[in-house]
Amino acid sequence: MSVANHFELLHTDGSARAGRLTTPHGFVRTPAFMPVGTAGAMKSLHWRDVREAGSDIVLGNTYHLMLRPGAERIAALGGLQTFTGWNGPMLTDSGGFQVMSLAQLRKVTEQAVTFRSHIDGATVVLSPERAVEVQRLLGSDIAMQLDECVRLPAERDDIDRAMQLSLRWAERCKRAFETAPEGYMLFGIVQGGDVPALRHESAQKLTDIGFNGYAIGGLAVGEPQAVMLAMIEETAPLLPKERPRYLMGVGTPEDLLEAVARGIDMFDCVMPTRNGRHGVAYTRRGQVNLRNARHADDPRPLDEESDWPSARNISRAYLHHLVKANEALGAMLLSEINIAYYQRLMRDMGEAIARGTFEAFRANVRAEWERGDLAPR
Amino acid sequence: MSVANHFELLHTDGSARAGRLTTPHGFVRTPAFMPVGTAGAMKSLHWRDVREAGSDIVLGNTYHLMLRPGAERIAALGGLQTFTGWNGPMLTDSGGFQVMSLAQLRKVTEQAVTFRSHIDGATVVLSPERAVEVQRLLGSDIAMQLDECVRLPAERDDIDRAMQLSLRWAERCKRAFETAPEGYMLFGIVQGGDVPALRHESAQKLTDIGFNGYAIGGLAVGEPQAVMLAMIEETAPLLPKERPRYLMGVGTPEDLLEAVARGIDMFDCVMPTRNGRHGVAYTRRGQVNLRNARHADDPRPLDEESDWPSARNISRAYLHHLVKANEALGAMLLSEINIAYYQRLMRDMGEAIARGTFEAFRANVRAEWERGDLAPR
Repeated sequence: MSVANHFELLHTDGSARAGRLTTPHGFVRTPAFMPVGTAGAMKSLHWRDVREAGSDIVLGNTYHLMLRPGAERIAALGGLQTFTGWNGPMLTDSGGFQVMSLAQLRKVTEQAVTFRSHIDGATVVLSPERAVEVQRLLGSDIAMQLDECVRLPAERDDIDRAMQLSLRWAERCKRAFETAPEGYMLFGIVQGGDVPALRHESAQKLTDIGFNGYAIGGLAVGEPQAVMLAMIEETAPLLPKERPRYLMGVGTPEDLLEAVARGIDMFDCVMPTRNGRHGVAYTRRGQVNLRNARHADDPRPLDEESDWPSARNISRAYLHHLVKANEALGAMLLSEINIAYYQRLMRDMGEAIARGTFEAFRANVRAEWERGDLAPR
Repeated sequence: MSVANHFELLHTDGSARAGRLTTPHGFVRTPAFMPVGTAGAMKSLHWRDVREAGSDIVLGNTYHLMLRPGAERIAALGGLQTFTGWNGPMLTDSGGFQVMSLAQLRKVTEQAVTFRSHIDGATVVLSPERAVEVQRLLGSDIAMQLDECVRLPAERDDIDRAMQLSLRWAERCKRAFETAPEGYMLFGIVQGGDVPALRHESAQKLTDIGFNGYAIGGLAVGEPQAVMLAMIEETAPLLPKERPRYLMGVGTPEDLLEAVARGIDMFDCVMPTRNGRHGVAYTRRGQVNLRNARHADDPRPLDEESDWPSARNISRAYLHHLVKANEALGAMLLSEINIAYYQRLMRDMGEAIARGTFEAFRANVRAEWERGDLAPR
């Protein structure tokens, strides 16, 4: 395999890993959580707060961006980093997942997936080659292969068919990516649903093709957490140790902790921002629903030991009021608080791995979650 | 009149004035624009950005706050400055205006206005004494008397009746405010619609009662700008020169420029934030509607000479995209850009008044607006 490697594996502790990924737009410390800026913006967050909350890298959705404002337009405006002002490392998905979940009248053939835009109804053809082209136009530091993701539970034949198609698309994506400039990366995606044998086959064949990094796709799509973790255990050991491993679309803080324990380096998920918009805060002591009336007269902050000012300084009473009154500031504050919590968890995991104390750290974090939130006053 | 004065008139230039108001929560430079934080939050803005954009003082709406989360609750939580974290000077209206515009089944008697909450239908009685009590519970630096505001055009008899009632309520508010701690202020409100004789009578009688400052109410309620400016000209000269003058609910940048020219010191308006949420930016060269397709491919910022980073650094193409995609970040950025523009205009007016060059400044600002926005590329 002659594929360049931009990942340094710096520490391991059991199966857990800490490292550093070098992209054209900067370094990414791993384990890394990528907040999701779907349509070229992080919902309810300024980019400076995404950065200050500890994010090294963010994710953009190719499906949304290719439909509006359009990949060619973004390229003409200097690429996604210049267009948005984020100016840091960015990974884009291939668009495949959203085509499956959002687009109408989609049709999957060997050649491509054809669908109607959910915005204006236009017919769009997304082939492996076009998925790579779009991501290169966007200027993504890390592009993802086009794949077909099957929602679970599913029949083994369906899972197998989609996995085999994804492998053929992986090869086409790799060829299309060959002319990409030095430093830009393409990741392959392991599919295979909840079937260990199919996961093994997919991981092995993707590794034979050779990518800058490897994602595990098709999880967190309806299966229990135990199945997800089992599939990570089946897959991660088969992936090249020196390459970054990305678990797509995951997850809760507990998912992150358990997946890092099983050798995952990168994650993305809408949970911290989406749940923040719905009044839920993530804290050292678990989830807190600010809609709950118990907070209405509570002058205490979410977590007086947090190093994030809004979590430490703003009263639950005020957050409760903002959420109840549907004030945009409520979504803004809870989104930044949640991203900061996620990123603090990632940093702390990385430091524990570096010190060789990950198991104790994990037990301690779980114990704090289990203590639960402060008693009502 | 033994009413304390916390205003220093520092400079005059023609009728225009520049000064400084001292409140329990800090100084306010005048001319001052007060952004409106209706329900204890500035829509789509962090408080730190309200401050950084140049705001010395903000306005809260008593009507909204008394209904949710409730004045007694806010008092128990330390008052509005502590509750919200704004921690600076705050003026509250009396609630009267919103009762007229938002509440259902309202009934005005000599004693009080009775209405149903637009939130939960509860019956609420707002008397002059309760309006003062609520504002003291909120901890407002500047409380406003309860008044009755008549929408224009209206019959002279209606305007007269509401003005006379407002005068009697002014006296009751003043008595209710007598026990307020040192440094807190109560402003009377001149009513009288578009009838000069009624404005004269209202201003004279309010001055006789004696307040810390004087507002001109009942304007920007449907009348042409020329009528509003004429009423200011009728009213301002009758108000005590050494007291602050506040024009309620105004207005466009042009309204502010013309009202300052006529001796007004303070303003509040939802325009910069509301219009920001609807895709409109205020700039040195007038209003810019970012929804317009002409901006879709335009890499230029709104105003490369602005001292506000978002106005100077972010492309029109990105702002257009955010507005079209209904991304919260669009409202966040345009709200801060607009508040910063308003506050820059206020500061520049103050400096021109201090230098005795207000007339030249005013002509120059008007000429820039008339040049209009940049030509499309």
